[in-house]
Formats: sequence, C-alpha cells, structure tokens
Amino acid sequence: MSTPARVRIVEVGPRDGLQNEKALIPTADKIALIDRLSATGLRSIEATSFVSPKWVPQLADAAEVFAGIRKAPGVSYPVLVPNLQGYERALAVGAKEVAVFSAASEAFNRKNINASIDESIERFLPVLERAGADGVKVRGYVSTVLGCPYQGEVPLADVVRVARRLHEAGCYEVSLGDTIGIGTPGKARAMLRAVAAEVPMAALAIHFHDTRGQALANILACLEEGVAVVDAAVSGTGGCPYAPGASGNVATEDVVYMLEGMGIATGVDLPALVATGRWLAGLLGRASGSKVTLSQA
Amino acid sequence: MSTPARVRIVEVGPRDGLQNEKALIPTADKIALIDRLSATGLRSIEATSFVSPKWVPQLADAAEVFAGIRKAPGVSYPVLVPNLQGYERALAVGAKEVAVFSAASEAFNRKNINASIDESIERFLPVLERAGADGVKVRGYVSTVLGCPYQGEVPLADVVRVARRLHEAGCYEVSLGDTIGIGTPGKARAMLRAVAAEVPMAALAIHFHDTRGQALANILACLEEGVAVVDAAVSGTGGCPYAPGASGNVATEDVVYMLEGMGIATGVDLPALVATGRWLAGLLGRASGSKVTLSQA
Repeated sequence: MSTPARVRIVEVGPRDGLQNEKALIPTADKIALIDRLSATGLRSIEATSFVSPKWVPQLADAAEVFAGIRKAPGVSYPVLVPNLQGYERALAVGAKEVAVFSAASEAFNRKNINASIDESIERFLPVLERAGADGVKVRGYVSTVLGCPYQGEVPLADVVRVARRLHEAGCYEVSLGDTIGIGTPGKARAMLRAVAAEVPMAALAIHFHDTRGQALANILACLEEGVAVVDAAVSGTGGCPYAPGASGNVATEDVVYMLEGMGIATGVDLPALVATGRWLAGLLGRASGSKVTLSQA
Repeated sequence: MSTPARVRIVEVGPRDGLQNEKALIPTADKIALIDRLSATGLRSIEATSFVSPKWVPQLADAAEVFAGIRKAPGVSYPVLVPNLQGYERALAVGAKEVAVFSAASEAFNRKNINASIDESIERFLPVLERAGADGVKVRGYVSTVLGCPYQGEVPLADVVRVARRLHEAGCYEVSLGDTIGIGTPGKARAMLRAVAAEVPMAALAIHFHDTRGQALANILACLEEGVAVVDAAVSGTGGCPYAPGASGNVATEDVVYMLEGMGIATGVDLPALVATGRWLAGLLGRASGSKVTLSQA
C-alpha cells in the first residue's frame, strides 16, 4: 500500500456545505465564495444544486450563481442535478459537468426520495444518457456508504452495487460518502476495497463528514488504499439535512494541511484557502470548522 | 504492518488537560473527575502534577487530590514530577508511579527550564535512580517530537536520543508528544519508526494534540507501526501553557470511538466516558472538545 503522489480535492462547500445553512445567503456572497475558491488552486468546485427549490430553498438561486461565477481556466464547476428537469436547468446556464446521486441504503432512499435503491438508479439513468449525448461529464455520489440514520448498517454489497451501476452508466467518477460521519478507518478501508474490486480506483473519490471527528483518519486509511480524489468543504460547512445528528463535511483546510504535510501535492494555496474559510465563517457568523484555521487565530 | 488487537489508553486530562485551565477548579471537582474516570474502565489515569505551584497554580492541590481519589483496583495513577523535590512530595502521599519529562527541542528546554537537552536529562536522572530504589514505576515524556514553537523543526536524532536516555535510565514507557499539534501522519510515522529502532515498541506511547485536527490520523499511522499505548484527555482539554497556539489534547472519547470501531479493544465504556466528558465540559463552562460527544447532543 502506498499513498498517491498527488490528490485532487473536490471542493463541495458551495453546494453540500451551504445547502444546509438555515439563514439564506445572498447570491452575491455565494458567487464571491466560489470566485475566491477558484483563486486558491482548487481544480474542482461543486458550485450549486439544481434540485427543486422546494427541497433546498438555500440553492433556489442556482442559475444566477452558476451564471455569475467567473469560470477559471482549468477548473471544473460541477452542479448537482436530481433528475432530467434539473439537468436541463443546469445545461441552460452552461454547466459542463453535473453530479447525480443515490443512497446505498434502502431505508434512506425510501425516506428521502420515496424510492428503492433500484428505483433510485432508474431515476438517474436518463440524466446519464442525455449527458453522454451532450458531451457533459457526470460525477456520481453514493451516500450512506458506512451507515444510515434509519437502517443502521448498510450492506457492503449495496454500496458496491450502486457504485458499479453509476460507473457502468457513465459516471467518470464515483464519490463514496459517509453521509452521517459514522465510519472508522477499518470500515472505511474495507468499504473502499470492496468497491475498488468492481470499479477502478482511478474512478473513485471519498467523501467524509467529520461528525465524530474521524474524517481525516478515514481519509488516511483510504489514501493508503490508493484513492486519489477527496471531497471536502472549506471551513467544514455542511452536513445532511435529512440525516439526524450529522454535522459538517471535513474541512478542506485540514485535508490540505494533512496532504501537503505528507508530501502529497494538492495544488492548493493553503493560506489563501484559510483566508477564504475565515471570510466564510464570518459571513455565517460562526467559528470556522477548520482546526488549522482556528490554530492561526 | 498491522494494528494491535488491544490498546491501553493513558488518560491525561486531570493533569495535562486541567493544568492549562485559567479558572481554578475546586479540589473536590478534580477528585470527582478522576473517580468518574476510574469507573469507565480506563487503566491509567494521570492524576496530577507535583511541579511547583508557582509554575502551575492550578495543580497546587496535588497532594490533596492524590490523597482524595479512590484508587480503583488495577488502575494506575501516575503523577508528574519535575525533580526530586516533586518526587518526594508525590511519594509522601503514596504515589506508586511517577512521570518525568524533557523536550526534544533545545530551544524549548532552554526557554522553559533554562537548560540544554543534556542538562534536562541530568535533572531527571536522580528521580529515576530514587524511583528504582523505591520500587516506583516511572513513565517518561518526550515533548516537541514533531516541531517546536521556538526552533521549528526538531531533528529526529534529538527525539531518539531523549527517548533512548529515558528508557535506558529506567522508564518502563516513553510517551512521544507532539506538544503543539503540528505533525501529520507521514512525519508521525517516521518519527515513531526512528525511535522504535532504538527503544522497543512495547515501551513506547504516543501523545498527540489536536491543534490542527491531525491527531486521530497521526494515531492511526502510529497504530499501523505497532504502537499500542495512546495518551488522550477526556473532552479534549489541555494544551501547553508554554507553546503559543497549542490547543487541546486529542479527546479520549474520539480515540475510543475510532479504536473500538476498528475492532481494537480499549476496555473503556464509551457512554460512561462521554457522560464524564459532558459533565467536565459543563464544569468548565464550554462545549466539549469531543466530536463524538457533540454528535450526541
């Protein structure tokens, strides 16, 4: 086992982070956040979500945000789409990359989208077909890969099945998410290994929430398995509005600090990222969720 | 590399944690804390410090605390001693185990005890001699093993030299401390490996502060090297009064959650520990430093 020489970070703060904020954030601030992130050296920034505003009022301004951001050369700005309708809204404002999602938990899918895993897969297939025809890249998310707030344990076979279907259907990358931050390194490693037996490691990403403080240790275990794409959110924002007890994503600042400290290149300017995270925390009126940032207070 | 089947946790909250609290904590509360910790299954609880009250006013009641706690069968209650005078005060109240310390950083020793590394070693040798004659166990701490607030980098050779001297002089266990929480997993692993080349792994412990959120990842890397003793502080209290920017120890709750999740036995009752940490946080009037505890709020 050896860790990769370089890791691509997928910054999910503007979407996965902000979607769980109760106070409405002005569109101009969202645009400013993404533009600041673009200047840090991040190459993938999930910009917003074209889900129904009924579900996520915070991101009702998805079209304005996406249209308003400066698209830096070489940077991808994927947007989440739940279905064909969302996909069309995203395409209308020029999205070049979208992301689809399914939980690996039967109970989670049932509760949140009133569908079985198989029905959930059926729902994203049309998006993948259209995206293939349109030349739009698609990223896939599998959530609840290490546990579910409703059913508890999630069978590894279900995680593998959803990840494989997303990849087979055309996702260039499948992100494996511990939505409720319940996993520990041994389980994270075993889960990644099981998925990597059926989907190439180069097409996998990991997505940890730091609910119980385990995210960096889980990331380390997965790096040792060879994964080289890590999702994170600046200032540790976010969580899951449908998952009781879930707190924020792992803070990008702390991930970058760990990786660079291990000699793993990220291409990210950490001081610029810390400054952006501090600015965002000020905007949200709370302490940063990044310990690296807090240590410099 | 394989992780150990069982880990002994050395709870340092009552000493390393509380010594950095500005508000004086009543002696009765310190005793209650240790008695509660004794009931969680922890086998090593550092109870207090017999340093001069001039240096650490918070622990001026060391003798009363040590005399007042219930000594549970099978549980060790080491106390920190800086010199022979402290050792004698500890012995007078019945201490069966003491701990001595030295920084691996020349600048840190110079600044804090006005001595070189070699002079610092000379100071703890008399304690080890007397303890050997008295049948008292001695634990050794090496601090600043991954960096120093005054000199920056700390040569690995200095870490190894101090650790080897402590072990040669009779310490049954040497705890390697990242006092300012600056390390990352690759460096933690390399440091442990270098020390373990000269001191048996079975005589080594690791001591991480979570200043930059790296503690659990560093612990994981060290577990993979085979270390089986981990220092931690309930509720993530503590830090280092002499190290600018250093925040708390890694929270025992989060360490136990990770280890038990990995199938590594600790013998600790996590719900009882979480309850104790929550009680302590209430006493200190602040949020717990344990994310496991916060996730259950």
